[in-house]
Amino acid sequence: MNELKNRQVWLCSRPNGIPRATDFALREAAVPTIAEGEILVRNHFLSADPAMRGWITDKSNYAPRVEIGDTMRAFSAGVVTESRNSGYAVGDQVMGIFGWQEYAAVKPAQVWRKVRELDLPLSLSLGVLGLNGMTAYFGLLDVLHPEAGETVVVSTAAGSVGSTAGQIAKIKGCRVVGIAGGPEKVRQCLEEFGYDAAIDYKAAAELDGALAMHCPDGIDAFFDNTSGAIHDAVLRRITLHARIAICGTASYPSWEPWNQGPRPERHLLVKRATMQGFLTTDYEARYEEAVTALAGWIREGRLKYREDIHEGIESAPGSIEKLYSGENAGKLIIRL
Amino acid sequence: MNELKNRQVWLCSRPNGIPRATDFALREAAVPTIAEGEILVRNHFLSADPAMRGWITDKSNYAPRVEIGDTMRAFSAGVVTESRNSGYAVGDQVMGIFGWQEYAAVKPAQVWRKVRELDLPLSLSLGVLGLNGMTAYFGLLDVLHPEAGETVVVSTAAGSVGSTAGQIAKIKGCRVVGIAGGPEKVRQCLEEFGYDAAIDYKAAAELDGALAMHCPDGIDAFFDNTSGAIHDAVLRRITLHARIAICGTASYPSWEPWNQGPRPERHLLVKRATMQGFLTTDYEARYEEAVTALAGWIREGRLKYREDIHEGIESAPGSIEKLYSGENAGKLIIRL
Repeated sequence: MNELKNRQVWLCSRPNGIPRATDFALREAAVPTIAEGEILVRNHFLSADPAMRGWITDKSNYAPRVEIGDTMRAFSAGVVTESRNSGYAVGDQVMGIFGWQEYAAVKPAQVWRKVRELDLPLSLSLGVLGLNGMTAYFGLLDVLHPEAGETVVVSTAAGSVGSTAGQIAKIKGCRVVGIAGGPEKVRQCLEEFGYDAAIDYKAAAELDGALAMHCPDGIDAFFDNTSGAIHDAVLRRITLHARIAICGTASYPSWEPWNQGPRPERHLLVKRATMQGFLTTDYEARYEEAVTALAGWIREGRLKYREDIHEGIESAPGSIEKLYSGENAGKLIIRL
Repeated sequence: MNELKNRQVWLCSRPNGIPRATDFALREAAVPTIAEGEILVRNHFLSADPAMRGWITDKSNYAPRVEIGDTMRAFSAGVVTESRNSGYAVGDQVMGIFGWQEYAAVKPAQVWRKVRELDLPLSLSLGVLGLNGMTAYFGLLDVLHPEAGETVVVSTAAGSVGSTAGQIAKIKGCRVVGIAGGPEKVRQCLEEFGYDAAIDYKAAAELDGALAMHCPDGIDAFFDNTSGAIHDAVLRRITLHARIAICGTASYPSWEPWNQGPRPERHLLVKRATMQGFLTTDYEARYEEAVTALAGWIREGRLKYREDIHEGIESAPGSIEKLYSGENAGKLIIRL
């Protein structure tokens, strides 16, 4: 018997909409015994991501739903402390879906990647070198494929995905305009992330007017994390052959029933524009390509990131709602 | 002075929505004198196309608006009767935007193509070998790029664009399901155009149920000419990585203001699907490729078409509204 305890955060009620701290509870379990082929991972960092809302609440989503009583599904990063798999050695750093817990018995399919950037902080593997950074990378380059000189608009522009997408667009020579909520995020966009312009959608009397001013030649590519009014305002100003990447829909707490809005079909037709949803998991074969590029830009000082690190597993239950409150100032991470 | 008269149909009032016969009038003008570089075309066939609604009514569209007093812009096909351009000889057959009139002084930019399929009827250059056929060709192959075995749904499935799109999908080895209005069009889909299944959306108590029955594995690609309720029902049944080509929006008589409906963003995201508007004019460099392929399939008996030919220029004014009444049984053409 293992004497160490394994603290876990589990789902104790099912929210309709944004999961709150009270939807989770903390429990102690035994540190698991691993089976042949598995590894034991000691988590050092847990992640809170918008996708977790869907994992809990949505009926038709891209992953099986987390059930009441389950340890919350989550990305985390840690170190292999025991291995019954020849592909992993004790001491290896790994990132994957290991859950909101201190220890995880991990099957290889749960590992997203071995962390090889040992000169950079392990926590980055949950943010700019993890799901967020890769989402920005594939969405920006594969879905939007912007060309130098084009105007790219990014919503939730100061967020961990948005800020990376915006900076990659800058690296590719685009004019980049961010949309974010509040003066502090606008400041980050301009001073830290190097956007050409940033719009505070909460302060702009008219988002249309602000977009017209900052995108005088129209919008060639749109990296959208919001849906809703921001999406509609950007859509009205797209150029011919514009591309719209649907990365997230943060404007709405729920999609049951489907939210209503202006139909895009006629506009997409007149503009010969493309609207495409994408998920990073579809690019698994190219994760190492993305991380190699992103890590290179970080080392060159061309890609900045922000982390909002909270201490202790007790911070996990309230972390998802923080993503939607607009409070967090960077990739939200829980350090164990 | 040329003694021949040139009868023309001109726009005498601006409709908001579908143009009616009373929005046009007939007049006689002189046969035009051509300038250096121009050709004189005697039209033999005039076309009525859904795009003409937009040319008249829409403020933000893909072509300058037809003004009151103008001869109605339209595709037509005819023969060169006089040439001051070394690229064209008297007797050449040409198709292009020559207007609803008997004679046109034509600049080279108005010519879409010289008709080279002299073994096939000239009228086909306005339908299955013209805008309609090429629209089906590029939308189906370039936007939807279906693979053998996939399920493709086509709306306005018995129409001149839809029927060609459906048959190309069959040629590519897909399972093809058509949506059309009324039992006669359903019969055409099944018996003449070879669809695997056809749904009468006017009779189907529940379009969702009919789609579920005929598309048991979901819908991989959707060639949409309608928008509206048909679009929404198909969208609910798309597969992962589905493609949706927006070719037309016939469900709505007007898009001012934008029509409202269920927002597609979340669904496109969860399904990693793509919705793309396209216009045939963007494929100008590939018109000959398309016509060569389409003409080849016609000669092999693999591509069927229907023409609904009306006699005399007097039939032109009422022809656009016929497109929306569901009356026409094939490509609507006026023979002069």
